[in-house]
Amino acid sequence: MTCDTGNTPQSLIAPPELRELRDSIDNIDAALINILAERFKLTRRVGELKVKLNLPPGDQNREEQQIARLRLLAGQAKLDEIFAEKLFNFIIEEVIRNHISIREIK
Amino acid sequence: MTCDTGNTPQSLIAPPELRELRDSIDNIDAALINILAERFKLTRRVGELKVKLNLPPGDQNREEQQIARLRLLAGQAKLDEIFAEKLFNFIIEEVIRNHISIREIK
Repeated sequence: MTCDTGNTPQSLIAPPELRELRDSIDNIDAALINILAERFKLTRRVGELKVKLNLPPGDQNREEQQIARLRLLAGQAKLDEIFAEKLFNFIIEEVIRNHISIREIK
Repeated sequence: MTCDTGNTPQSLIAPPELRELRDSIDNIDAALINILAERFKLTRRVGELKVKLNLPPGDQNREEQQIARLRLLAGQAKLDEIFAEKLFNFIIEEVIRNHISIREIK
């Protein structure tokens, strides 16, 4: 059988082993999205509590503790520590933006 | 009782309700780190497979499908869709960097 794939994207002609790995990645991504959604629910509550208690949106000491712990956990899980730190800084920046907007709305 | 907290960081004088929320955030972060570690194990295998099959490191069609699905999942989970997309672009960029370095090593 001749099989001319032409310009067919890789995703449509992926061999079974690649498709299987991608299915697992998709399952993991669904888990990540749901866990992140829960994390933002919690940080929203933290933001509201901070407004109520008149605490500033960011807490450098807490953030330093979090980063140190995350690097440790990343190392244990064999995840690149520098990548883990960059990713969590990205998340924390969004959290602080949310805390500031909660404060502005109230 | 006088309680002069002076320059004591917020994290050391956090009220119980804030400490409880932070404990839950810490548990969620440990889960995120471990799930991400598994995701990178899978993408490493994808990278190795792509070298073996002589496929390019990135696959635009697959990435577009992933982003569309993630935005949908984020909406269902009430997670900000734009943030979810930015975060996954950040992860995908790291994955492609890893794919390229696997190719260079082999």
